[in-house]
Amino acid sequence: MSTLAADFAHLPAVWKRRHLLDLESLSADEITCILDAAAAFKAATNDCRTKLSVLSGKTLANLFFENSTRTRNSFSLAAKRLGADTVEFSSSGSSVAKGETFIDTAKNIEAMNVDAVVIRHRTPGTPHLLAKNLRCTVISASDGPHEHPTQGLLDIMTIRERRPNLAGLTVALVGDIAHSRTARSNIWGLTKLGAKVILCGPATLVSRRWEEFGIEVAYNLDDILPRCDVLNLLRIQFERQHTRPFPSVREYALLYAMNRERMARAKDNILIMAPGPINRGVEITPDVADGPHSVILEQVTNGIAVRMAVLWLTLNAND
Amino acid sequence: MSTLAADFAHLPAVWKRRHLLDLESLSADEITCILDAAAAFKAATNDCRTKLSVLSGKTLANLFFENSTRTRNSFSLAAKRLGADTVEFSSSGSSVAKGETFIDTAKNIEAMNVDAVVIRHRTPGTPHLLAKNLRCTVISASDGPHEHPTQGLLDIMTIRERRPNLAGLTVALVGDIAHSRTARSNIWGLTKLGAKVILCGPATLVSRRWEEFGIEVAYNLDDILPRCDVLNLLRIQFERQHTRPFPSVREYALLYAMNRERMARAKDNILIMAPGPINRGVEITPDVADGPHSVILEQVTNGIAVRMAVLWLTLNAND
Amino acid sequence: MSTLAADFAHLPAVWKRRHLLDLESLSADEITCILDAAAAFKAATNDCRTKLSVLSGKTLANLFFENSTRTRNSFSLAAKRLGADTVEFSSSGSSVAKGETFIDTAKNIEAMNVDAVVIRHRTPGTPHLLAKNLRCTVISASDGPHEHPTQGLLDIMTIRERRPNLAGLTVALVGDIAHSRTARSNIWGLTKLGAKVILCGPATLVSRRWEEFGIEVAYNLDDILPRCDVLNLLRIQFERQHTRPFPSVREYALLYAMNRERMARAKDNILIMAPGPINRGVEITPDVADGPHSVILEQVTNGIAVRMAVLWLTLNAND
Repeated sequence: MSTLAADFAHLPAVWKRRHLLDLESLSADEITCILDAAAAFKAATNDCRTKLSVLSGKTLANLFFENSTRTRNSFSLAAKRLGADTVEFSSSGSSVAKGETFIDTAKNIEAMNVDAVVIRHRTPGTPHLLAKNLRCTVISASDGPHEHPTQGLLDIMTIRERRPNLAGLTVALVGDIAHSRTARSNIWGLTKLGAKVILCGPATLVSRRWEEFGIEVAYNLDDILPRCDVLNLLRIQFERQHTRPFPSVREYALLYAMNRERMARAKDNILIMAPGPINRGVEITPDVADGPHSVILEQVTNGIAVRMAVLWLTLNAND
Repeated sequence: MSTLAADFAHLPAVWKRRHLLDLESLSADEITCILDAAAAFKAATNDCRTKLSVLSGKTLANLFFENSTRTRNSFSLAAKRLGADTVEFSSSGSSVAKGETFIDTAKNIEAMNVDAVVIRHRTPGTPHLLAKNLRCTVISASDGPHEHPTQGLLDIMTIRERRPNLAGLTVALVGDIAHSRTARSNIWGLTKLGAKVILCGPATLVSRRWEEFGIEVAYNLDDILPRCDVLNLLRIQFERQHTRPFPSVREYALLYAMNRERMARAKDNILIMAPGPINRGVEITPDVADGPHSVILEQVTNGIAVRMAVLWLTLNAND
Repeated sequence: MSTLAADFAHLPAVWKRRHLLDLESLSADEITCILDAAAAFKAATNDCRTKLSVLSGKTLANLFFENSTRTRNSFSLAAKRLGADTVEFSSSGSSVAKGETFIDTAKNIEAMNVDAVVIRHRTPGTPHLLAKNLRCTVISASDGPHEHPTQGLLDIMTIRERRPNLAGLTVALVGDIAHSRTARSNIWGLTKLGAKVILCGPATLVSRRWEEFGIEVAYNLDDILPRCDVLNLLRIQFERQHTRPFPSVREYALLYAMNRERMARAKDNILIMAPGPINRGVEITPDVADGPHSVILEQVTNGIAVRMAVLWLTLNAND
């Protein structure tokens, strides 16, 4: 394990938060601070591959009330690559089933003297509730349809690697905006950094209310496509929908899937993103997903970089 | 990772056991030895927060045939904070379903050259059976309704932190004694150290047979309350009961819950404990659980300290 | 953690593979190379008990689409004892359920910059498919009924510890050959190293087609028993059989179980092996399983040694 701790000895002056609960409450400077730290950690670890020891002796608890192998492992890897230990708590087999309150469960985990709790819960506001009740660091791994801040950060980091200046970029979020915590975190993060955000999808999945926040809403992908610098193709989350919001998957793909034909009408340097897991043939065709404009796998790598940065910043905020 | 191994270089002469199976078979000196080591580890690790390397290179296997995120993680954290590795075995997805005997499962885990097996099983005596068949260290994480020795130790450690002299203290265990392994480990540990134990609960859950062991049995909490220095409020384990042992939860709470009114009639310095998870409103009201007399979360922290001590003592017993 | 890395600094010239997918495609020299490395790691780690740091900073991902606590933990322990980190992916709760393709799942795990993926899948050829699509190391933990290469290697290592010269040895694989990936890996490995292999079991579970590969097929254990140097008793995998391939377990045991009476007619120095978990009373009686000729638990220990060797060789193949 290399010890490049000296490179990360000084916390940026702008960072004062012990928790990361959402992007809505962060300033542009704070978001930039995380992105800069993530880029530094990525560089210092050979693309998140080697280990540092800047969080040696710290312990991260993963408290996931919804299944997520991938996000959980991304946090675990970020922690391990900074030298921290991890423990896994899940809702099944835990004490919630025995009648314990959510806050008591969290306080018990804190009493094991973990340094940070990563929480995923389907109820919006759960991370904020935890942060009010625990002394340790709380990091949101998404709270229902509300926000998924580290997903938003990794998306923005991936754009910034290819387009260093976000101001003036046009980023379209396409698909299931209504159920997407990823959308909400992207909206807050991107607009704070000066990018223009367009929400695009079927009217059943994209509310006109977003226009009140200064966000453009579009129902026809082909109309906005020529203006877009980045497309972030959200997955249709069939498992979260109780009524079908469109007639058929085939019709959805016809209207909103990025395919070879639409790529021909897009900007030459358009970036294609997707938070994954992707449904090939639904929101994206294989030739686009695997094509030269796709940065989908780079997003996964950057997820570890962003989570290393968030862990390091929040865990040092009180020192 | 700090290396305070020198502080823990010498095994106390009284400790000679390779296993921890129950408290019934330990002497008062052996129990005190564990409690002293636990206090030393807690102090040396900043309340179980930082790491030592005294068990570096050792491997602990968690073999849980009953779900328990909390106890399993407490053992894992104790192991990791002493520098040991952990591996997790569970009954689901394991070879028991394929027709393998319990002893063969355990011998296979031992053949992977783990140094200690932590076993939870619903059958009383399982840890003892393992200890007879394995060469490695066996530590009980509870065997059905029989004993839960590390829970007993952490309860006693928590009392001793506030009342250094246990002799002459009156400790009441309140609630579901019949199904409680915690009760049995507390009874053995506390009486060996000179404390007086009272068992209190509905007649359906507290047997008069305990009087044969010199333990006081009471059915009315209000009668014994003024005499108690410590109340340990056991959870009503609905999931282990096939017949309802009392008419209603409301009636149970009326007769046995610690609440503001009962606190007013208790000793000024009474300690309120609970093994957790707690059922707020059943055995304890929120104001008492979160009040100044409650040491419930301190018990959780001490669970790691006690498990560090047990691992260190048993794993060094053969050196 | 001791640092005997110097002993393992030079990769044997014969080893050039980044993946381990099966034994069929390995040469005798390559198999011997793994076995030599496994023996060296076993010796250097006090029978797989202490730690080296030769893979420090590397990360292994376990990607198991079939349950296997034991094989998974054996790989995890092998990785940890060489200083590597591990992350666990499973099919339940993963993104496959959300419509993601198998290759996308694997590419996502690779994008987290893990160094090796250990894959178990019920579809034959899955490890080969992965190896074609991933840049990182792929190690098979078995692909359905096809091969289980590390099981074959640990079986052969265990024989070689007792009979250093495999050439000319007669090894019978007894039982459910049809469903056994262990059988197939043993057949390829043993024959490449010059041993004679006999397949023995009910006609419904042993195909005459194997004779085309020069393998002896026998239906009567008693006929071949006096000639055998090693018996590898495969488990009847009831969970993989949709039709009963023999009239009753009792009849199977009568014809094929190794018991005291058959041991009396076997060679004096016969080795009794079983890949485990064993069904006592079916393919083996307790006195034989626990007797002086049994090396069943030694196989488990050697599983870690073999997996350490495979990890070290494949992860260094590209350096």
